[in-house]
Amino acid sequence: MNDLGNYLQSRRNAIDTALERFIPTPPACPPLIGQAMRYSLFAGGKRIRPILTLAAGDSVADHDTDTMAMPAACAIEMIHTYSLIHDDLPAMDNDALRRGRPTAHVVYGDGIAVLAGDALLTEAFHVLAHHPETVDTAIVARKIRTVDCIAEAAGVVGMVGGQAIDLQTTGQACLPETTARGKDTALDGTGLQAMHARKTGALIRAAVMAGAIMAGAPDATVDAMDSFGSQFGLAFQIVDDILDVEGATEELGKTTGKDAVAGKLTYPAFYGLAESRRLAAQSIDRAKRALSDASLGGHLGAIADWMLTRTH
Amino acid sequence: MNDLGNYLQSRRNAIDTALERFIPTPPACPPLIGQAMRYSLFAGGKRIRPILTLAAGDSVADHDTDTMAMPAACAIEMIHTYSLIHDDLPAMDNDALRRGRPTAHVVYGDGIAVLAGDALLTEAFHVLAHHPETVDTAIVARKIRTVDCIAEAAGVVGMVGGQAIDLQTTGQACLPETTARGKDTALDGTGLQAMHARKTGALIRAAVMAGAIMAGAPDATVDAMDSFGSQFGLAFQIVDDILDVEGATEELGKTTGKDAVAGKLTYPAFYGLAESRRLAAQSIDRAKRALSDASLGGHLGAIADWMLTRTH
Repeated sequence: MNDLGNYLQSRRNAIDTALERFIPTPPACPPLIGQAMRYSLFAGGKRIRPILTLAAGDSVADHDTDTMAMPAACAIEMIHTYSLIHDDLPAMDNDALRRGRPTAHVVYGDGIAVLAGDALLTEAFHVLAHHPETVDTAIVARKIRTVDCIAEAAGVVGMVGGQAIDLQTTGQACLPETTARGKDTALDGTGLQAMHARKTGALIRAAVMAGAIMAGAPDATVDAMDSFGSQFGLAFQIVDDILDVEGATEELGKTTGKDAVAGKLTYPAFYGLAESRRLAAQSIDRAKRALSDASLGGHLGAIADWMLTRTH
Repeated sequence: MNDLGNYLQSRRNAIDTALERFIPTPPACPPLIGQAMRYSLFAGGKRIRPILTLAAGDSVADHDTDTMAMPAACAIEMIHTYSLIHDDLPAMDNDALRRGRPTAHVVYGDGIAVLAGDALLTEAFHVLAHHPETVDTAIVARKIRTVDCIAEAAGVVGMVGGQAIDLQTTGQACLPETTARGKDTALDGTGLQAMHARKTGALIRAAVMAGAIMAGAPDATVDAMDSFGSQFGLAFQIVDDILDVEGATEELGKTTGKDAVAGKLTYPAFYGLAESRRLAAQSIDRAKRALSDASLGGHLGAIADWMLTRTH
């Protein structure tokens, strides 16, 4: 295994260990909801977002990333997992399969699935506020800035807003009589990118920014991470869309071609496959330039290259 | 109107004004999800929880409660509102009517209702982290402690955990083959109280504690608020159960007697009406004793008396 492969594997292991530590257990947590949270949280996810958080922390500070940035990394993964559980619900994307396993609502019922998502979202903010446990005023200030950054990215300005636009444009939302119809209900290329910047991009941006903030980075570095995260997030979504068209169900572990069936506008559908690939590569170039302009080393650049060539 | 009546009305107005200020608006917030959040947030709620936050702040500090404790008050109301939206979903209590109006999922569809709840929960933490805007290290420390306190109360140890137990005991959750059946699936009097301590009590406790924390109260005062909140929350739930049996649909604005139809265990069903009334009054006495033991004045005692006699 090469250097990057070793890094990714060791970071994945550290994240899984930390998630085990941060997730409430019985008797404080009722057994069934605890089981449902863990079912989705430990479902073989690639941990790309929390790895980005740790890699951003590593690129700023040489040591102690695990103490400083790990809570934020785990919170990001918990928020990502909650969004998958809710997106998979029959009321939204109605997905029965995720990462090769039945989705949470198939196993636990819709009610517990809604609550498992609610729980992961709430516990994410508890982890952010509670860890690392310290009264050091500089670190407390970083913690509240991280809560601010992640909450904004996960909320209506970011992820939830993007999912709401997605629901509305695929006709799955009721529009009350009083709601104006029009530009909101159809996407063009610009609208597609804006929707994904919210739905996928915002949390990825927050992931790298949170790592830098918790590692004590200066504002200019946090800004560079913001630029890196924006471009990485865009490329990530384009590659996801390409894999949805190209991938086999067996390999990707979810129903492929589903975007097209659901009438969702995707990058390949709008730009074609070749142009989509070019756009993804262009975003990764821009992401890496944001790092080099800020003289930031570490693994983020290699992770960006690897993401571009991923096959699942 | 008496003193308490004036206080409640002026606090309600101030809370509504602050909520308008804190809720994201277009273009940052996509219009439909913004509309859905506002639909439930401004649905004529009594604002009891945020009033408790402000009253707790008022009982600690003579001035500036509106700057210090108002963000926490609004966050508590946003979290309460999100919990109502999700509880009303067909996958949970399946309520079509709330406060005399169609519930969010009836108006906007289940998907947008799930997202409106997610959005209110997330924005609550954004409000807590972002306001009041200050670099004062003492206030920043209060803010992170408030996020910690509210996240714990709203999560699996508290509100979400209580709702999960409620779903499971009313048979609305799927139990995977691997889940042990047994004591979790039937409630006795102790289990009933423990479930409500999570589902209703935890957020009410956090509401008064957050007001005290943000007002800069010493730990002993925060502890007294914790005791007050526990007893107030218990009485609140018992009164709610009594009103469900006694109230008329017109007066309460929701379908009454529904608990019994749903097979939910309630205080009147378990203890009878007279004993339920005695238990509620006993809790309010204990709540007021927690205040007097800590020499805390202000409006909290009068609010507790008023809550006991409410008819809706």
